[in-house]
Amino acid sequence: MKPEELAKKAKGASDIAAHITTEMKDKALLALEGLIRERQDYLFEENKKDIEAAEKAGLGKSMVDRLRIDQKVIKEMQASIRDVVALPDPVGEIVKIWRRPNGLQVGRMRIPIGVILVIYESRPNVTIEAFSLCLKSGNCVILKGGSEAYHSNQALFTFITEALHGAGVSEDVAHFVGTKDRSYIYSLLKMDDYIDLVIPRGGEALLRSVVEQSRVPVLKHYKGVCHIFVDEWAEKDTALTICLNAKVQKPATCNAMETLLVHELIAEDFLPEMARLFKKQGVTIKGCKKTAKILKGVDKAVEADWYEEYLNLTLSVRVVKDLDEAIAHIRKYGSNHTDAIITTHYHNAWRFLREVNSSLVLVNASTRLNDGYQLGLGAEMGISTTKLHAFGPMGLEELTVTKFIAFGDGQLRE
Amino acid sequence: MKPEELAKKAKGASDIAAHITTEMKDKALLALEGLIRERQDYLFEENKKDIEAAEKAGLGKSMVDRLRIDQKVIKEMQASIRDVVALPDPVGEIVKIWRRPNGLQVGRMRIPIGVILVIYESRPNVTIEAFSLCLKSGNCVILKGGSEAYHSNQALFTFITEALHGAGVSEDVAHFVGTKDRSYIYSLLKMDDYIDLVIPRGGEALLRSVVEQSRVPVLKHYKGVCHIFVDEWAEKDTALTICLNAKVQKPATCNAMETLLVHELIAEDFLPEMARLFKKQGVTIKGCKKTAKILKGVDKAVEADWYEEYLNLTLSVRVVKDLDEAIAHIRKYGSNHTDAIITTHYHNAWRFLREVNSSLVLVNASTRLNDGYQLGLGAEMGISTTKLHAFGPMGLEELTVTKFIAFGDGQLRE
Repeated sequence: MKPEELAKKAKGASDIAAHITTEMKDKALLALEGLIRERQDYLFEENKKDIEAAEKAGLGKSMVDRLRIDQKVIKEMQASIRDVVALPDPVGEIVKIWRRPNGLQVGRMRIPIGVILVIYESRPNVTIEAFSLCLKSGNCVILKGGSEAYHSNQALFTFITEALHGAGVSEDVAHFVGTKDRSYIYSLLKMDDYIDLVIPRGGEALLRSVVEQSRVPVLKHYKGVCHIFVDEWAEKDTALTICLNAKVQKPATCNAMETLLVHELIAEDFLPEMARLFKKQGVTIKGCKKTAKILKGVDKAVEADWYEEYLNLTLSVRVVKDLDEAIAHIRKYGSNHTDAIITTHYHNAWRFLREVNSSLVLVNASTRLNDGYQLGLGAEMGISTTKLHAFGPMGLEELTVTKFIAFGDGQLRE
Repeated sequence: MKPEELAKKAKGASDIAAHITTEMKDKALLALEGLIRERQDYLFEENKKDIEAAEKAGLGKSMVDRLRIDQKVIKEMQASIRDVVALPDPVGEIVKIWRRPNGLQVGRMRIPIGVILVIYESRPNVTIEAFSLCLKSGNCVILKGGSEAYHSNQALFTFITEALHGAGVSEDVAHFVGTKDRSYIYSLLKMDDYIDLVIPRGGEALLRSVVEQSRVPVLKHYKGVCHIFVDEWAEKDTALTICLNAKVQKPATCNAMETLLVHELIAEDFLPEMARLFKKQGVTIKGCKKTAKILKGVDKAVEADWYEEYLNLTLSVRVVKDLDEAIAHIRKYGSNHTDAIITTHYHNAWRFLREVNSSLVLVNASTRLNDGYQLGLGAEMGISTTKLHAFGPMGLEELTVTKFIAFGDGQLRE
């Protein structure tokens, strides 16, 4: 199908997608869950093709691991579908209603966004997660996975069409783009008359090229340079536990801590103990001058390190004069993703909450909690750091928009 | 100032704008209201230059009228400022808060979007309205008015800087672009690292060129092809009054009715009476075949007419078989702006409300009510038909986004 034909078809199907009953949507999702289990041998076969090609192409082990579908990934995909089934249908929800002096009852009702193009790399699970969330929120989805996962994604997509068909839902509410031809995607990105939103998930290069090319609005996050500020008034044990969790629990994720800021009045007491715990877990520190004085032998951080999203066990550490300097540092080097303060001081907690404008700002909790499940949204479509529409984890609600509705009995404009 | 310098400066000032107290913002706004009154002679002088240039250039009377600042416009600008002062400050409002099983209190707090570029044509009042709303919502604004209103906008902007200065607020929170050089604006539109949102207000050509050029997200509406469907079950008098109001109260506005859809079972009774009322007001009808049978002598509507935003006293009229055909017509030819049903039938009212995805859907009320004041939002920045972030009138809340906040006592990711 030519890009324009696909986009038009999707637009046409968005009216269908918007009005599927909750029961039908859940039926299709549960059918998909069943197919993933029943037809896993076929899925493993197709996945093997991707794995072998990736190994032949000399992709790194971690890349190959992300492609791999095993029993654990099957279970994860099934669980993610059940999570979405369990979530309330957002379509048609009236989120607010108020009465005007002329008696007009005005409200806001959730509706789907329309057609969503999801562009992603490596992990084939995203095919399932993106489809489930878009279907439940009444959107028509166009899925474009990475070419390295082509066979796996294609196999999963055959399950999707089969599940839709079995549940009596039009197969046109989900589309799959298999081509490796970049110009095809670039054409889709120009079709703002048919496509309402693009959500790219992947490396910064992918995201920048999507933003560069797109005439369709894009929700994305470039990177997560997350900070924890250990205040002068921090409880030491709380600070140690949270910082350790934020750095080492899963260092390759966007919400892991990349820079630790420590108040100078607590630094000499706190940093040596923190460093010992980090050392046990293999964390390498790059410190500012003051840090290097306290922790002998650590590498010196250079200016570029403060901007760095390491995604590994490296950590930048800076001793700061006070809360102002901590906030100024986060504003200058941060990425609006996730930042936390550890403190027992009421005013400092509130100032940090108010003045740091990241998608999640925490007091006395780990940055790793920035995630749809952890925050109670249920499943999510990634974390947006675009300060428009959705800022933070994007759950079902973020895949909708509200229209105004008005119940009148003859109201006119005077 | 070069575009990049301006954009960077604005980005820097957005942190200042985000944390001005409500008191200071209101003080600056009231100072501005005072200056508009006290220094109106200067404003009239500058405005005269624009008017004379427009007349010399042979602009149409309605265009010249839109440029003109007289006592009435002064009063309107003052009232619009007082309206914004009266609205609650949205910045820092916690709109929702919930508790997670691990005890974490998670909430959503309103923050400004950041830097907003407003591009507009003709009416100089927009300078005041856009500035007031952006300041109150804690955003830094870059104002780019039409070159035809250059002197008026420039004069109003001197009042703005004076008011900010007098209230002790940094003048960097508002910027004015005076150049006629399009490439300057095109450069700004590429600076998505510094500018968070573009709101263009004006003709379709302006809007299309902004969307075409922009890497920054754009909220806009291209046009308003608004429908009223008079159902078989409509109360005739209600239908007559509402349709008349929607068409003639101010035909040149985006929320005026452009197409009237009438159920075939009521058409013969309703249309002649409606046509008599319209005729008195100078409305010209372009009708479908069935309409032409009922109303002898009306012009025949051609296919293109159903897409038409007349913005004058012309009206397309179509007789439809039922609610389904009415909804299908609106989906095909509508612009997602404002659509209404006139009915006494409970199920038809709800089906129309649910299935028509326009920014405002009304039952038994005039399309002319799609307006921030009328719906109770207070002032507005125009009506968005982009189905993202803000769909419908954009008030103060729509100029903010929510960040997640979390109050913890040691919560980790397990």
